[in-house]
Amino acid sequence: MASYDDVMSLSIRRGFLWPAVDLYGGFAGFYDYGHNGALLRRRWEDLWIETFLGLRDNYHLIDTPTILPEAPLKASGHVDHFTDVLVSCTRCRESYRGDHLLEAATHQEHEGLTTGDVDTKIRELGVRCPNCKGELGPSRAFNMMFPVGVGPTGKDRAYLRPETAQGVYLNFKREFEALRRKLPLGLAIIGRAFRNEINPRQGTYRMREFVQAELQIFFDPAAFADQVPLDGVGETPVRIAWAKEKTSPGAREILAKSLVEEGLPSWYVYHLVTVQRFYSDVLCLPRSGLRFAELDEKERAFYNKIHFDVQVNQESLGGFREVGGVHYRTDYDLRGHEAASRERQSVTVGPSKIVPHVLELSFGVDRNVWALLDLTFTKGERSVLRLPPRLAPVGVAVFPLVSKDGLPERTLELYGALRRKFSAFYDDSGSIGRRYARMDEIGTPYCVTVDHETREGKGVTIRERDTQKQARVADAVLSETLSRLLAGEIRFEDLA
Amino acid sequence: MASYDDVMSLSIRRGFLWPAVDLYGGFAGFYDYGHNGALLRRRWEDLWIETFLGLRDNYHLIDTPTILPEAPLKASGHVDHFTDVLVSCTRCRESYRGDHLLEAATHQEHEGLTTGDVDTKIRELGVRCPNCKGELGPSRAFNMMFPVGVGPTGKDRAYLRPETAQGVYLNFKREFEALRRKLPLGLAIIGRAFRNEINPRQGTYRMREFVQAELQIFFDPAAFADQVPLDGVGETPVRIAWAKEKTSPGAREILAKSLVEEGLPSWYVYHLVTVQRFYSDVLCLPRSGLRFAELDEKERAFYNKIHFDVQVNQESLGGFREVGGVHYRTDYDLRGHEAASRERQSVTVGPSKIVPHVLELSFGVDRNVWALLDLTFTKGERSVLRLPPRLAPVGVAVFPLVSKDGLPERTLELYGALRRKFSAFYDDSGSIGRRYARMDEIGTPYCVTVDHETREGKGVTIRERDTQKQARVADAVLSETLSRLLAGEIRFEDLA
Repeated sequence: MASYDDVMSLSIRRGFLWPAVDLYGGFAGFYDYGHNGALLRRRWEDLWIETFLGLRDNYHLIDTPTILPEAPLKASGHVDHFTDVLVSCTRCRESYRGDHLLEAATHQEHEGLTTGDVDTKIRELGVRCPNCKGELGPSRAFNMMFPVGVGPTGKDRAYLRPETAQGVYLNFKREFEALRRKLPLGLAIIGRAFRNEINPRQGTYRMREFVQAELQIFFDPAAFADQVPLDGVGETPVRIAWAKEKTSPGAREILAKSLVEEGLPSWYVYHLVTVQRFYSDVLCLPRSGLRFAELDEKERAFYNKIHFDVQVNQESLGGFREVGGVHYRTDYDLRGHEAASRERQSVTVGPSKIVPHVLELSFGVDRNVWALLDLTFTKGERSVLRLPPRLAPVGVAVFPLVSKDGLPERTLELYGALRRKFSAFYDDSGSIGRRYARMDEIGTPYCVTVDHETREGKGVTIRERDTQKQARVADAVLSETLSRLLAGEIRFEDLA
Repeated sequence: MASYDDVMSLSIRRGFLWPAVDLYGGFAGFYDYGHNGALLRRRWEDLWIETFLGLRDNYHLIDTPTILPEAPLKASGHVDHFTDVLVSCTRCRESYRGDHLLEAATHQEHEGLTTGDVDTKIRELGVRCPNCKGELGPSRAFNMMFPVGVGPTGKDRAYLRPETAQGVYLNFKREFEALRRKLPLGLAIIGRAFRNEINPRQGTYRMREFVQAELQIFFDPAAFADQVPLDGVGETPVRIAWAKEKTSPGAREILAKSLVEEGLPSWYVYHLVTVQRFYSDVLCLPRSGLRFAELDEKERAFYNKIHFDVQVNQESLGGFREVGGVHYRTDYDLRGHEAASRERQSVTVGPSKIVPHVLELSFGVDRNVWALLDLTFTKGERSVLRLPPRLAPVGVAVFPLVSKDGLPERTLELYGALRRKFSAFYDDSGSIGRRYARMDEIGTPYCVTVDHETREGKGVTIRERDTQKQARVADAVLSETLSRLLAGEIRFEDLA
C-alpha cells in the first residue's frame, strides 16, 4: 500500500503514467502512459482476455468505433439520463458535482440524488463555494457525454461513447448469426470510453478518457443457471458489502451458496466468484483487499437490475474504491434498440424465440493499473514494486557486474538471446546496487548479472526481487530456468 | 486479389468487419470489427510491434489520449493547415472534396490544390454536382479535425487527434529523461485517430475513425547514418515510383545503394528496406505488390521534408493504394512545441545540445487489414483466404468426422487441450466438407479431424488449407506438430 503522492511520484519517475499535456500546463482528466505503464496495462489486458474470454467457448473479442450517432444513445437512455448534478458558483463560476459538494460537507456518500435533492441539502447544510465561499447557484442536470459533429456540415449529431457496451449490443444479432447461434454468447470490447467529468481527480480514478474492458454475456434467463452451475464454488467465501449495511464498518465474508439463499441468482454469484478469482489467483491480490459493494436502486445506473461494484482497498485513494462492476442489465438494452430501430433483436434458441438478457462484467483498466501500483509498491530504504511476474513490464534485467574486462560484450550477447524470448532490459550504467534499485522500482522480478566467474564457465547469478537472494545458474539452462520462474512452474528457492 | 464486393461480402459473412451502426441505417466512415476481424487486426499489431519495436533496443510503446487541447495542435500546424478543399452544391447542398471532383472529371490525381486552384479548374472543366447536376459553389478550406468541448462549460476547445504522432512529441523530453538519454529513441503508439472526411468511402480505406500504428524515431542527423548502416542491404532492390514519373506506368526496382546515390539519406533508405521486409517476410506479400511512391512538395503534408507513401496493389481499390508512409518530419514538430510551450526540447547528446529530428514510420492498421483480405482471398468453387498462419484468426480447427460413435466427445477432449495453446475452434455442424469450407474462408491453416481410426489409436488427420492435403499424425505428437507447422519450422510435406 502506498500514499497518493508515492504512487504518482513513482509513476512519473519510472515511466508508468503522468498527467497529459504537461508541456502546455496540463489537461485535467487525461493521462499519458509511459513505456512501463503501456506494458503494464497491456499485460493486464492480456490476462483479462485469457481469464474472461477463456470462461467459455463462445466468448469473443470484437471492436467498434468510439463515436456513435445520437439515435442508439437516445435508445439506450444515455442522451436523456446519463447525467450528473452540476452546481456552479454564482460568484467565481467554478463548477462542482453536487454529490461531491455534499460528500465534502458531510463525509458521507450522496450518490443518486436529483437536482431538487441537491438544492435542498445545499440549503439545509449551508454549503458554499469551496473555492471563493460565494453562493452556489441552482443545480442542473449535466450530460456527461462529449458531443461531436460528424460530416462536413457537422449536422449529424454524435457522441463519444460513454461505455463500450452499446457497440456490442448493436452487433449482437449479427454476431449471433455469424457464430454458433447459441447462448450464452459473450462479446467483449477493450477500448476507450469518454465522460466529461465535472471534476476529474484522484489520478487515473476519475478520468475524462479511459480504457474499459467489458464483457457482455447474452443469455437465456431460463437456462443460464444450469449452464454455469455453482457446484464446486458454492463453498467459496465472497466478501460482500450490502447496500443496506453501507454505514456499518464494511464487508462480511459470505459463502457463495448463502448468497444464492439470500436471493441473488446463482449465475450472478458464479460470476462474482469468477471475478474474485481473477483478482486473487491471477492478479495475486490479498482476498481481504477486494470486496463487492451492492448499489441500491437510487445509486445504480438506470439500466441495471442487480449491480455490485468491484472494489479494491487502496491507501492512495483512501479506502475501497471501484475498479469494476458486475451488472445485470436484463433485456433493457436490446429491447431499447429493438423499439428504436424497429429491428427484431430476438433469436431462436431451442423451441423458443427470446430477447436475451445481459450480464455485464465491466472493468476500468486505468483504475486497475492504479490499484496494482498502490497495492504492490512499498516505499522505504528499498523501494520495491512487487508486481506478479506476469504483469511486470520487464521480466528480466541483464547487467555486467562491471563495465570492463569484456563483461559488457559478454552480457550484450546474452541479452540479445534473452530478448528474443522475454521482455528484457540491459543496463550498465551506475553501480550494480543502483541498477538493482531501478529494477526493483519497476517491478522486474529477476536480474541476471554477468561477472568474472561467468567468463570461467561458472554461469551467471539470478537475483530475485522480493527476497534479494541470489543463485548461480549455468548459462546453458538460464533461459529455461527464467521461463519456468516467470511462469511460476518452479520457485526461486528450488534453485539453491 | 479480390473485387471490392468480394472483400466486403466475405468480411460481413465471416465476421471480419462491416459498416457500423447498420441497425440504425449506418454511419458513414465508421466500421465494426467482428470476432475474426478483431483477431486479425490484433495479430497484425503484434507482428508490427515485434518487427518495428524490435529494430533497436531503445524503441518503446507508449500511449496517450485521443483528445488533445487546442494549444499543441495550433503549434503543430493542424488547427491552421490540416484542411481539405470542400465544395458544396448550391442546389442540393451535397458536399464534396474538391480534388475528388476533379479526379472524377479528369481521371487524374489532383492532390495539394488550393481553394483558388480548385475553383479555377471547376470552371475550366465545367464540373457540376455529381448528385443533381446543380451548380457548385465556391470552394473553402475545411478543417478535418473533430472539435470537442471539454469541461462543464465546454469552453476549453479541444480536438480528437488527427494522428497519434503529436502525443508522442509531447512526451519526448520526459521519456528521453526516464530512459537511456540516448538517440535514436523510438516511441510508438498504436491507437485511434480521427478525421472528419468529407466523403468517406472505399471500405476501411477512407474512414473517419481509424487505427494508426506509428513509430516516431528521434535521431541526431549527424549520427544516424552511422547508427543504421546500409551494409548488407545495399543490394536490396526497392520498388520506387518517383513523384516526377507519376504519369508513367509505374514503379521501377532500384537497388537501395542507388537510391542513396540519387540523393536520399542512407538512414531513410535503410527504413524503406525495413518496411519492405515487413511486407515481404512477415506479411508474406509478393514484392511486386508493394511500392514506395514519392510525394512532391505540393502533395506531401506540411510537416514532411521527404515523404514516400507505402502502397499495396489491391484489386478491390483499383490499384496501388496507400497503407502507410515513411516521413522525414525534420525537427518541425519539436521546434513548434518548443516555441509555443516555451519549454526547451533540446537534449544533450555527447558534447552537444540538439533538438532531434524525427523519422516517422506510419501505418493505417485498417487499411492493412483490408489489403490482407484483398490479397489473400480467392473466390471460386473453393473460396480460400490464404492468410499467413501467424495472421490467421483461428490457427487450428478441430472436427469430429461424424456426430456419433463417441467422436464428438473424443474431439471435445482434444479441443480442450489444444485451445490452451492455440487459437482453436471446434465445429460439429454440417458435413465435413462444409466445415472445411467455413475454415478456408476465414483462413484457418490447419484442420484436425477425429475419425473412427482415432479410437483405434491411429491418430488424427491434419488437413492443410492451401494444398487440401491430409496427413495422419499420432495423438501424442499432435500439439508439437501443430506448433512447428504454425511457426513455419516444418513444412506440411515433411509429415507425409
